[in-house]
Amino acid sequence: MTEKRQLAGDLTKVDVGSKVTLKGWVQKRRDLGGVIFIDLRDRSGLVQVVFNLETSEEALEIAESVRSEYVLELVGKVVLRDPSTINPKMKTGDIEVIVDEISILNEAKNPPFTVLDGTDISEDVRLKYRYLDLRRESMQETFRLRHQAAQVMRNFLNEEGYLEMETPMLTKSTPEGARDYLVPSRVHAGHFYALPQSPQLFKQLIMVAGFERYYQFARCFRDEDLRADRQPEFTQIDIETSFMTSDEIMAMTEKMIQRLMKEVKGVDINTPLPRISYDEAMNRYGSDKPDTRFDMELVDVSELVKNSDFKVFASAVTSGGKVSAINVKNEANNFSRKDIDKLTDFVKIYGAKGLAWLKVEEENLKGPIAKFFTEADQLDLIHALDASDSDLLLFVADEKNVVYDSLGALRLKLAKELNVIDESRFHFLWVTDWPLLEYDKDAGRYFAAHHPFTMPADEDVEKLATNPDEVKAAAYDLVLNGFELGGGSLRIHKKDLQEKMFEVLGFSKEEATEQFDFLLQALEYGAPPHGGIALGFDRMVMLLAGKTNLRDTILFPKTASATDPLTNAPGTVSQAQLDELSLGLSGEALIVNEE
Amino acid sequence: MTEKRQLAGDLTKVDVGSKVTLKGWVQKRRDLGGVIFIDLRDRSGLVQVVFNLETSEEALEIAESVRSEYVLELVGKVVLRDPSTINPKMKTGDIEVIVDEISILNEAKNPPFTVLDGTDISEDVRLKYRYLDLRRESMQETFRLRHQAAQVMRNFLNEEGYLEMETPMLTKSTPEGARDYLVPSRVHAGHFYALPQSPQLFKQLIMVAGFERYYQFARCFRDEDLRADRQPEFTQIDIETSFMTSDEIMAMTEKMIQRLMKEVKGVDINTPLPRISYDEAMNRYGSDKPDTRFDMELVDVSELVKNSDFKVFASAVTSGGKVSAINVKNEANNFSRKDIDKLTDFVKIYGAKGLAWLKVEEENLKGPIAKFFTEADQLDLIHALDASDSDLLLFVADEKNVVYDSLGALRLKLAKELNVIDESRFHFLWVTDWPLLEYDKDAGRYFAAHHPFTMPADEDVEKLATNPDEVKAAAYDLVLNGFELGGGSLRIHKKDLQEKMFEVLGFSKEEATEQFDFLLQALEYGAPPHGGIALGFDRMVMLLAGKTNLRDTILFPKTASATDPLTNAPGTVSQAQLDELSLGLSGEALIVNEE
Repeated sequence: MTEKRQLAGDLTKVDVGSKVTLKGWVQKRRDLGGVIFIDLRDRSGLVQVVFNLETSEEALEIAESVRSEYVLELVGKVVLRDPSTINPKMKTGDIEVIVDEISILNEAKNPPFTVLDGTDISEDVRLKYRYLDLRRESMQETFRLRHQAAQVMRNFLNEEGYLEMETPMLTKSTPEGARDYLVPSRVHAGHFYALPQSPQLFKQLIMVAGFERYYQFARCFRDEDLRADRQPEFTQIDIETSFMTSDEIMAMTEKMIQRLMKEVKGVDINTPLPRISYDEAMNRYGSDKPDTRFDMELVDVSELVKNSDFKVFASAVTSGGKVSAINVKNEANNFSRKDIDKLTDFVKIYGAKGLAWLKVEEENLKGPIAKFFTEADQLDLIHALDASDSDLLLFVADEKNVVYDSLGALRLKLAKELNVIDESRFHFLWVTDWPLLEYDKDAGRYFAAHHPFTMPADEDVEKLATNPDEVKAAAYDLVLNGFELGGGSLRIHKKDLQEKMFEVLGFSKEEATEQFDFLLQALEYGAPPHGGIALGFDRMVMLLAGKTNLRDTILFPKTASATDPLTNAPGTVSQAQLDELSLGLSGEALIVNEE
Repeated sequence: MTEKRQLAGDLTKVDVGSKVTLKGWVQKRRDLGGVIFIDLRDRSGLVQVVFNLETSEEALEIAESVRSEYVLELVGKVVLRDPSTINPKMKTGDIEVIVDEISILNEAKNPPFTVLDGTDISEDVRLKYRYLDLRRESMQETFRLRHQAAQVMRNFLNEEGYLEMETPMLTKSTPEGARDYLVPSRVHAGHFYALPQSPQLFKQLIMVAGFERYYQFARCFRDEDLRADRQPEFTQIDIETSFMTSDEIMAMTEKMIQRLMKEVKGVDINTPLPRISYDEAMNRYGSDKPDTRFDMELVDVSELVKNSDFKVFASAVTSGGKVSAINVKNEANNFSRKDIDKLTDFVKIYGAKGLAWLKVEEENLKGPIAKFFTEADQLDLIHALDASDSDLLLFVADEKNVVYDSLGALRLKLAKELNVIDESRFHFLWVTDWPLLEYDKDAGRYFAAHHPFTMPADEDVEKLATNPDEVKAAAYDLVLNGFELGGGSLRIHKKDLQEKMFEVLGFSKEEATEQFDFLLQALEYGAPPHGGIALGFDRMVMLLAGKTNLRDTILFPKTASATDPLTNAPGTVSQAQLDELSLGLSGEALIVNEE
């Protein structure tokens, strides 16, 4: 068996008559009256191999002993299948391989689950036997797509003159990085490195170093309380550039996305992509990452209802809040009071005190609160909400953020339940004009909405000292189908502005110097204007692959509690290892250690 | 100033007459009687810009205020230089740009060192101001080369059907990994992740998962006592493949290296590359990573001298050691006794008890030990060492390893001092047939020479139980100019052999299961035959760029004591951070903290 190996899935009618060597796994074995059929799988796909009367006694005997997932090496001849056995569902369904020689390269125990798509298995079992889970066609497909997506973007960035560069993983912890993973140093007792949450400062230093165009598929780490769609380590496509405006950075990103969608999905994306300001996104969709594949937009009816007799609406507006509504088209008759009660419970999760509703019947509004509105007001409402007969109108009256959060979430929930989202569409858009700062009442100070290195909008720099609330950031987020794909900004490149920013964020001069001295120094030595963008690669692959679970796009992911059921990481370590690091366990860890 | 920016270094005679917008740094400013010349630098190179009588008063005034490393935006017209001022050393030396408009994008303090190659600066200062150090042309060149080398290898691997895949950084610590960096878990008190020393087990699992061809530019971590050429984090090109033989893996690697050398250095490399066994490498070069750009090979003269009257030689051989010599051609008259005494001190570093020498004069051996050899023996020695008049012969008689280490090091030292190495050559070769195991007298057990997952040579499997010393590994190292570029092996893909291997390494069944249960399990479910190679990317770039310091090839490297003078990593952390991790400081760390 010294022939050059051929790939199972690549065999076609052209190969009929050829002798081939195949190596791969047993997908399925059938024994039909002394003739044995095996579907042999390798990275290219499947082919049917046959042990029949032409096969030697010895080979037949081996074939009989073979089970699912055995690894085989085969030599045989490609033949046309009998017309009655042609399998049109199989890429190689026209042909089969009559085996001359077989050898078993490795055996396999009966796997804990069938290596087939669609098998319903708990995720814990899938992760424990990840090497089997990954053999399934849809997983193989996802990681081929992930590979291809990476190469398409790399090629684009290479053509545009970007250099791929590697920033350190063993970096310094900063107090702003409350969720840093720490790495104790053995050589420097009592000192710690931190794993990067992003290469933010290093990529800025690369710009100061004059490279002008940098990218990296950067591994980032965040020790957050995990949610289903978060991972302790994740990959972002990190891009930074000098001398470019926000518009130029967005245009470059659009070109990259356009190429990606064309080459990976065969989908044409029109550019420039739509842009929407943060304020408008909140007003119209109740979200800073709106899913624009469907309408059902929020409509602000505050002006129409603030003088109405319905006190709940009127007082919400007069106390500084607002009233918005969504129009659930044609669904008035499909929602019972009970159904609407359930929706009311849903919006309460988001802090709403209630959900008001009206139905449109014969061009009039019906429902318990209809009576509070004059006929003229009703017509205005119907007009504002572009409503017609059988539409269901749902209202929330509250503080702005509650209105946004609750109606934004309700809009998504109803769209999914009513199946109005065209899952085959890819709706990209930019959200721009973000607030630079967010005031935290508990902490009694401003925090950076993105990060402390974000450039304020040119026209707002003056307001930093006087009206920090009103300052917009030179920042932009790329949104796809309701997910934040990533975001970027121009960065502050002048020392005095960066110092001003630290001041607004409540840093004393000493704190700023202690933590960010190297950045402030770098800004003094000819830092160019610069900015960039970072896109979440795992999530991008998830959306391109049509998956809903981020873990399906990461080769060896962690669970929601940041463990790996395969290797059992994290694990305990020996006292000797701790001693070498000059560390001791305390608190809860002591209890763990005694167990 | 809204014109599309052009790159300084790309301007040529073709642009003469055009209006251009430039952005970049001031490399140098000269003021010649009211005319100001600035060498403007951007990522593409330099161009001379001129403020002369045609320039507005206002622009001239700004130009006068400009200093080195200021960041400028300029609009001007490209003109031919006056023939007398053409600068043939400068790529754009034919032309210059007469400036119409100038604006200062950022100022710069006087830098701590000139941003020019060849400036002699201490490495600490270079690392502290890395962003300035990196602006220098040779550093820019190195990182462009690093980028290009990565892309060439990626393209090659992509064409060969390899998928780029990402393995986790937060993994499990194993006792074999004594030099793991640990990462405490916040969620799981008392538990730790480990940063990977290599993705060894994950790439094997990728093979078990059926992907067949994987690669990654993998960040790896090793908490070693650092040496000049080691870094706590480094990048390796990690390749793994199923169903390929050692020969096929080496041939694939050679094709990649051939492409790399052609595209990056314009150098043709003949394949197949030379191969030499580990034993032969030690015998001929006293090194397992021989520099074959020059001869001066070790010659084993044990047989010739074992019966001689020179007891030092004779007894070394009879007690199981050996006598080898190198021939320093034509240098007999250039080495005084004092010089040779210095060489003797040098070999003592490597444990040699002394260095014997002979000179060839009129086809006879001269020197204090010549008298111990008969005329016939002398002729045999001269013949064996291919010696002729004026050659200096240097001998070490000792245990084998001492002979190899000392003469191997001496060979390199003399070659450097005598300048016999052609630095422009790239000598690649494979070292094969490595021992699988190494016996550690202190520990009283065998250790894996590479790692415990390396496949023994087919013909030696039987000897694992009986003569572990004699077992060769299916392993191969790629050597370039005396540096180990990387290495690989076939891996064990059967559970029983892997268990046998753990047993030979002194693991109890329980220990093996506790630490490597997931691997042993994976080998039971249809693991294909597989193997791979990992190449050190930092070192590869160092050799391609003609650098001698590994730190010059890493963007933000650590010092020899694993610190970063730029960010001051590692640093201390707050008690609150430690409490969150259920950790306390102990031992030395307590003292640090009190300081």
